[in-house]
Amino acid sequence: MRVPKVPVFYMSNFKSTFLKIRENNFFELFVVSVIIISAVAVGFRTYEETFNPEIYLYLSYLDYFITTVFLVEIVIRMLAEDKFINFFKEPWNIFDFTIVFISLIPIESLNSILLARLVRVFRLLRLVSFIPQFRVLIESFITAIPRVSYILLFMFVEFYIFAAIGSILFSEINPLHWGNVGLSMLTLFQTATLEGWPDLMYQSLEVQRYSWIFFVVFIILNSLVFMNMIIGVIIDVIVKANDEESPENIRLLNEINSRLVSLENKLNKNSNDI
Amino acid sequence: MRVPKVPVFYMSNFKSTFLKIRENNFFELFVVSVIIISAVAVGFRTYEETFNPEIYLYLSYLDYFITTVFLVEIVIRMLAEDKFINFFKEPWNIFDFTIVFISLIPIESLNSILLARLVRVFRLLRLVSFIPQFRVLIESFITAIPRVSYILLFMFVEFYIFAAIGSILFSEINPLHWGNVGLSMLTLFQTATLEGWPDLMYQSLEVQRYSWIFFVVFIILNSLVFMNMIIGVIIDVIVKANDEESPENIRLLNEINSRLVSLENKLNKNSNDI
Amino acid sequence: MRVPKVPVFYMSNFKSTFLKIRENNFFELFVVSVIIISAVAVGFRTYEETFNPEIYLYLSYLDYFITTVFLVEIVIRMLAEDKFINFFKEPWNIFDFTIVFISLIPIESLNSILLARLVRVFRLLRLVSFIPQFRVLIESFITAIPRVSYILLFMFVEFYIFAAIGSILFSEINPLHWGNVGLSMLTLFQTATLEGWPDLMYQSLEVQRYSWIFFVVFIILNSLVFMNMIIGVIIDVIVKANDEESPENIRLLNEINSRLVSLENKLNKNSNDI
Amino acid sequence: MRVPKVPVFYMSNFKSTFLKIRENNFFELFVVSVIIISAVAVGFRTYEETFNPEIYLYLSYLDYFITTVFLVEIVIRMLAEDKFINFFKEPWNIFDFTIVFISLIPIESLNSILLARLVRVFRLLRLVSFIPQFRVLIESFITAIPRVSYILLFMFVEFYIFAAIGSILFSEINPLHWGNVGLSMLTLFQTATLEGWPDLMYQSLEVQRYSWIFFVVFIILNSLVFMNMIIGVIIDVIVKANDEESPENIRLLNEINSRLVSLENKLNKNSNDI
Repeated sequence: MRVPKVPVFYMSNFKSTFLKIRENNFFELFVVSVIIISAVAVGFRTYEETFNPEIYLYLSYLDYFITTVFLVEIVIRMLAEDKFINFFKEPWNIFDFTIVFISLIPIESLNSILLARLVRVFRLLRLVSFIPQFRVLIESFITAIPRVSYILLFMFVEFYIFAAIGSILFSEINPLHWGNVGLSMLTLFQTATLEGWPDLMYQSLEVQRYSWIFFVVFIILNSLVFMNMIIGVIIDVIVKANDEESPENIRLLNEINSRLVSLENKLNKNSNDI
Repeated sequence: MRVPKVPVFYMSNFKSTFLKIRENNFFELFVVSVIIISAVAVGFRTYEETFNPEIYLYLSYLDYFITTVFLVEIVIRMLAEDKFINFFKEPWNIFDFTIVFISLIPIESLNSILLARLVRVFRLLRLVSFIPQFRVLIESFITAIPRVSYILLFMFVEFYIFAAIGSILFSEINPLHWGNVGLSMLTLFQTATLEGWPDLMYQSLEVQRYSWIFFVVFIILNSLVFMNMIIGVIIDVIVKANDEESPENIRLLNEINSRLVSLENKLNKNSNDI
Repeated sequence: MRVPKVPVFYMSNFKSTFLKIRENNFFELFVVSVIIISAVAVGFRTYEETFNPEIYLYLSYLDYFITTVFLVEIVIRMLAEDKFINFFKEPWNIFDFTIVFISLIPIESLNSILLARLVRVFRLLRLVSFIPQFRVLIESFITAIPRVSYILLFMFVEFYIFAAIGSILFSEINPLHWGNVGLSMLTLFQTATLEGWPDLMYQSLEVQRYSWIFFVVFIILNSLVFMNMIIGVIIDVIVKANDEESPENIRLLNEINSRLVSLENKLNKNSNDI
Repeated sequence: MRVPKVPVFYMSNFKSTFLKIRENNFFELFVVSVIIISAVAVGFRTYEETFNPEIYLYLSYLDYFITTVFLVEIVIRMLAEDKFINFFKEPWNIFDFTIVFISLIPIESLNSILLARLVRVFRLLRLVSFIPQFRVLIESFITAIPRVSYILLFMFVEFYIFAAIGSILFSEINPLHWGNVGLSMLTLFQTATLEGWPDLMYQSLEVQRYSWIFFVVFIILNSLVFMNMIIGVIIDVIVKANDEESPENIRLLNEINSRLVSLENKLNKNSNDI
């Protein structure tokens, strides 16, 4: 899935060997198999109740094996680089390196079994970095962030203001949901997903008659902001699609126009000549 | 609704007879009536409590009748084909054949009354294959699959990773929803439909203070992926609509341009001649 | 808001009087005021508990007044028509006529107080037929029906098949929701709005392990059908927008092209002449 | 973030000083810091339970400080204007002035601690008016209102009619939700967000068998109106995007066309001359 960027004959024997391994299809297939096996193992561990003790032993062997393969794979990719530092120039390599590095932490040293198990799940992120289409998808999310950043910031400010109002109005009625500005923001996120908000409203309606205004305004404002964001993205998409197509049109039109101008000039000269 | 593709005079008398039947409007009307009757009968059976025993007799007669009609209809369509094997070249014929074939299994042989009743419902799928517009709709879904396949695979990986994390964090708090990776994926599907997720979150908040991050990140990530998918489809649609329209534009522009070039050449020759 | 289509001097004195009334701005304002008053009265009646008895008397006087105004208004519009039958040629007139006709039924003759009150609400539909922009909105819905009719029919078939399966699988677990094919369709409509479906699923999961497939497939299929419908409508909109704009382009291009052809011919003739 | 519109040397020394302050980056940074501090203080106050008494003292000092800064900032902006009255010509200035003016009301004079705390939150709206991108966002909402105003009015009428029907049919079954036309409209808003409507329906189904029609029709009608609104906005967006792009096309085509006409004329003249 990766194309070698440096001609092979150029490098020392040593480098070219690792580059050949990195580009080898069987090596790739092997790595992706190990990633999938590690994913299956993570899922398998959650069916704990059906285990007999010796399975744990096999699973820990598997863990060592997966960690070793990941380590070897990343070392090969590092050595295959022209210069060692180039490896860290691509963000996805840093991503992979972090995953492998964290996997190397000896699980026994973690004082919590929970953390040990989460580290194993963390390794599954290699699935995302390994499949090029997934990387493209993630990159498209990241490039979309600046485009919507002001709307996200606006939503944060909006949530914060409403959360402050909610805390002031309802903190005594329902401290679990409106106790402080943090809980209130969580409650407003829930309200923004339109889930369970009528219960919250009827609870507060009993004490404060006009609290329905708070909820109705928040929901309508939110849907406006959200619609604005979606339409903004669609406009971008349409403008981009039009831009890609129109240059050919405009180029041809300009060519025709300049051709006509030269024709006119020629005719003028001709008519003068006659 | 179907157009004969082979001229009729070409075939043996035998084939042409079946072809005539297949293309006959009354025959089509008859078949669609039987399909609708079978649909009504399936619905009628669900109002069991209002039945007197002899209705069961009539309904079983009706079952034999419907099965026979379906069988005769598919045999006619098979015999109307030029070559027998051609019938199985169209996927929708295989679809119909499977339905009729399964309907032929004697209901008494099924050891479960449940399965017997499901087979009858299964016959209603003939409604989908009989109406051309429905076939087009289903085909449009199937052709859409490769376009969104990577996003669907990404969502599966995303659900799997979150399900593994959810199992590790919450399996002791709520084994019904987070007991293992399978149950967790179902719970995350529920969360993705934004239904009942606050209950799950507040349940876990009591034990783990930061579990709200899990839910909020999952919901926001999901809505990003979903929005990405919808916008991808809309881009495709716009690009396609533009492509259908622009060739006429570009063709005309190119024609005009080449005409101008030939004009210039002619003028150059003329001026040289003079 | 309505423009007279027939020149006024053309008609008998009698007709022209009514036409003048119909087109009179004050008359229009008066009618819309009465419609709004009747709307307020309908809302006011729902706050029954705060009433003292004599208000009922005033409200019944108001009812007679509103009915009379509506009757007089529609008679004027009928008499203002060139020919009496023309009045019934426009669907919105039939709509108005039906509303007024039903309002005329003496409320005492209705054996149910419920029906009497619903008739009053029914009069509020005159708000919809009176405001031209509302009529345009309703007409846009009606013209959209054929475009999406096959998808709606498909959804009906889909709901029916799933309802039959649901009745067979779950009718004993939860007769209230899955008792027969009618109740099941209502339950599936609820599931399609993504509201409360996890409760239904977990209820059935306890008895039938694989019933989650039923719900997950139904929800995903539904969202596909729905997305297909929305994208279909957006395609229509884009194609239409492009069609409105491109003719001017194409017309100009064709004009330029034919001009060039005539230029070529002229040049050919000229060069021959020389 | 604001560009001076009047050349500085033009003004009196006095004015120019204030203008310089207003345009000063450090002054802007200072004001935005104070706004953010006031936001943090508002949030902080909601964690009341963790307070020791003297924090209240510091917070009230902070309140005086914030109010003073806001007052000084708006006075500087007023004095920096060419004419005092110009300040009130921009709606956002009126918005800011109102916020500062309300903040000046001595909190002790408010007979309710609730109102005092809400006034502090109200000050956070300066965040919205201070950041130019937020102002643009809010302005885009306000300009969108006339475009969708008829659809919003239609929705109001639709909600009102359904609320009146709901009050008549269900007020005795569930007075909390359907007691009068106001409560019914709130309940219908909840139904429009598709939240908790099945509970309301099954409640009424027990008494009135056909009440499901009320809910199903309302939900389908609502989704049609909503889809209509979204598509209307998308059409606007596409038409606008096309309009921005096509003038260049059309202009070039017209230029080419007129050039050809003049060419023809010249040729005609030439051929006549010869």
